[in-house]
Amino acid sequence: MTTTSDSAVREFIAEHRPAFLDDLADWLRIPSVSADPGRAGEVRRSAEWLADKLRSTGFPVAEVWETENGGLPAVFAEWPSGDASAPTVLVYGHHDVQPAAREDGWDTDPFEPVVTDGRMFARGAADDKGQVFFHTLGLRAHLAATGRTAPAVNLKLLVEGEEESGSPNFAALIRKHADRLAADVVIISDTGMWSADTPTVCTGMRGLADCQIDLFGPSQDIHSGSFGGAVPNPATEAARLVAALHDADRRVAIPGFYDGVVELTEQERELFAELPFDDTEWLSVAKSRATLGEQGFSTLERIWARPTAEVNGIWGGYTGPGGKTIIPAEAHLKLSFRLVAGQDVEKVRQAVAAWVTAQLPAGIRHEIVFPGATRPCLTPLDHPALQSVVRAMGRAFEQKIRFTREGGSGPAADLQDVLGAPVLFLGISVPSDGWHSVNEKVELDLLAKGVETSAYLWGDLAEHWNAAD
Amino acid sequence: MTTTSDSAVREFIAEHRPAFLDDLADWLRIPSVSADPGRAGEVRRSAEWLADKLRSTGFPVAEVWETENGGLPAVFAEWPSGDASAPTVLVYGHHDVQPAAREDGWDTDPFEPVVTDGRMFARGAADDKGQVFFHTLGLRAHLAATGRTAPAVNLKLLVEGEEESGSPNFAALIRKHADRLAADVVIISDTGMWSADTPTVCTGMRGLADCQIDLFGPSQDIHSGSFGGAVPNPATEAARLVAALHDADRRVAIPGFYDGVVELTEQERELFAELPFDDTEWLSVAKSRATLGEQGFSTLERIWARPTAEVNGIWGGYTGPGGKTIIPAEAHLKLSFRLVAGQDVEKVRQAVAAWVTAQLPAGIRHEIVFPGATRPCLTPLDHPALQSVVRAMGRAFEQKIRFTREGGSGPAADLQDVLGAPVLFLGISVPSDGWHSVNEKVELDLLAKGVETSAYLWGDLAEHWNAAD
Repeated sequence: MTTTSDSAVREFIAEHRPAFLDDLADWLRIPSVSADPGRAGEVRRSAEWLADKLRSTGFPVAEVWETENGGLPAVFAEWPSGDASAPTVLVYGHHDVQPAAREDGWDTDPFEPVVTDGRMFARGAADDKGQVFFHTLGLRAHLAATGRTAPAVNLKLLVEGEEESGSPNFAALIRKHADRLAADVVIISDTGMWSADTPTVCTGMRGLADCQIDLFGPSQDIHSGSFGGAVPNPATEAARLVAALHDADRRVAIPGFYDGVVELTEQERELFAELPFDDTEWLSVAKSRATLGEQGFSTLERIWARPTAEVNGIWGGYTGPGGKTIIPAEAHLKLSFRLVAGQDVEKVRQAVAAWVTAQLPAGIRHEIVFPGATRPCLTPLDHPALQSVVRAMGRAFEQKIRFTREGGSGPAADLQDVLGAPVLFLGISVPSDGWHSVNEKVELDLLAKGVETSAYLWGDLAEHWNAAD
Repeated sequence: MTTTSDSAVREFIAEHRPAFLDDLADWLRIPSVSADPGRAGEVRRSAEWLADKLRSTGFPVAEVWETENGGLPAVFAEWPSGDASAPTVLVYGHHDVQPAAREDGWDTDPFEPVVTDGRMFARGAADDKGQVFFHTLGLRAHLAATGRTAPAVNLKLLVEGEEESGSPNFAALIRKHADRLAADVVIISDTGMWSADTPTVCTGMRGLADCQIDLFGPSQDIHSGSFGGAVPNPATEAARLVAALHDADRRVAIPGFYDGVVELTEQERELFAELPFDDTEWLSVAKSRATLGEQGFSTLERIWARPTAEVNGIWGGYTGPGGKTIIPAEAHLKLSFRLVAGQDVEKVRQAVAAWVTAQLPAGIRHEIVFPGATRPCLTPLDHPALQSVVRAMGRAFEQKIRFTREGGSGPAADLQDVLGAPVLFLGISVPSDGWHSVNEKVELDLLAKGVETSAYLWGDLAEHWNAAD
């Protein structure tokens, strides 16, 4: 569906694209590496640069927000619609970047953007400055094409400065400012699409609960000749726990683990199956030799929509050269559980703890700690805001928009939980963009599609939000 | 059965006991710590001291034997019987000792023997100088009581200097000198008895085969969010291997593992059950909280007479503080298998290797190495030489002699294999003697019983050996 409005949007974007890219390049020159304490000043400069830019874009409110514990600053901006019935949308992104140095193998200086063959190369080009920045021109195109002086929705932006360092102060930040961040829907612009040819919307991320289990057997390492075969070995029991995590069908065997799991709908399974996916190609990305997982599910279903139990680390006993005939005193496990919508972190923890206790034989003492967790999030395909994103992308890309999910876990769930709002994902990055790697880049035509999607989205959301209420 | 001959032996021993203990103390003053390169000279001095002592005891041949690779010397001595039909006996012991220092917590200088309450405290008092040395006075008592000028058997002694360092050159040494060491029976005096009240003869030791298994999954650590649940995890597979080692009855589940196992006879089980054994007391020695092992067997049966599979070490993935959401590229296992009589090391290795291959899923590559092995050894209860040891001990201790086995593994099997002779164990040490620990001691009355047993043994062996042929 191409409308007169769409033509106007495109013309506006084409006209302003060179200046927009110059501005983005300026921002990318600021090496806002949050992991490097020596660049804390650059992260602050990046926040101030963005706040200035948002003010010049028209946002009446654009503030640098400090985080707790001397953390790195975020940027908050707000532009009320003026329409009493307008929904409120919070856009999330981050302005900090991964470390990068020419010596890592970059073809060009990672903090001196270079445009070649329609691509801008720089650290942060795709993750995430480019994807935050497309909203600025998108918003101006929206205003220009509609003749409005304020957005069709109450627009808020929250652009974090510690995402690449694990967002240590993010949950506290949004709890502190929950009133000002209040929104009907959250749009995360920090993800990507299936490919340039197959534009997609991500509808959810898995959650994560991790734990460490420490098993204690003999009070010190004992001789495996004198005692072997007659007392429990904590390394054996750690291994037996891991083996018991999955049944013969590689389903997680912890009683209660799947309680509440939102199962894939037939529609979702069909849509996933339509994606141009090939296990062999995927294995090369996964650097693995074979697929293996829960019986009855495809690889995409396994990584996007099924909860998992993985061993991240295991250790116990003698690990040096040669042999040592001991029964070790201790063994240790680091496990993590990817969670999907409907699973409750606390209930999963309780199920894991009870299961561990039930599995271990007499004579093995254990301790279990659950250091952290991230909740899963999922937006149903028929959610009105998701439909708006799909329509806006469809207009920009002029083709069918498909759906993906994200197997990893992110701060999206904090926003969902604290703000009580559904979370959507709008990103135009593609897998070849080199996130966290050398020669990170953004495809300029896709960046322009992101601008265009953003330009269509607010009007569509405002139009359909109340209808759906 | 106390005979006139027994009285003569006892009188001889009582008369020579003070000088015998003075001599032993002299030997114990030599800190022959084989693990300490700085004390290599002391180990050599210990060997020369012993060779001198054996010559003065009457051995026509007493030599210091060099070992390969610049190893520490052993002592060989030989005294032919002169009787054409006499059997040949090789007594094995070692003259090196474990490290010891006053600062480790000893009440007295470990290399300055102190006699208190009928015990001599010094490093090596029980392990193994005291138990080698009782043969010298025993032999003299044998000669004195029988009026012989040479032993009733062709007597050979081999006293190693590297036992506490793992006997690295022992197998090569005995292969090199196999002709001179040739014997009809080997008597190891480097073990102990159940207790001072319950004298016992050890009838066998378990063998040992160890292996390291390296599992390889992704070519590098990969993200457990992006890929978790869809590719094999080598840490999981390592754990599943370990868990599959045993069935629900804690029997080793590797096909073929039990092939050839010499099962306990009803007589042996009854005799083991008569020993004053208490699981709770044993657990305090094992520093463990509960017993656990193969169903259908007692603790003593499990550690003495049943083969085992133990994990000595397991490692893979992230083992530092906090969490790391990875699927590790590698995981590793160190396993050891205790073997019993009838099991063949090579067949066990083949069974393990085949089983590992069969267990692992597609996508996990593995390597397996078997660095070393020690064969099991076992002497049947009705073996004539064992009967001689039991009779000799019975005369010395004047009570019923019971049977034990040793759960550990030792160079006994090398002697058995290279010399093709049955191996017996004659030791008078008790569990409280503090082997490898502080305040090692030997009970002087038990030491005298060792002397007396040795005095009776050669005549009994000579008398019954040919009858049994």
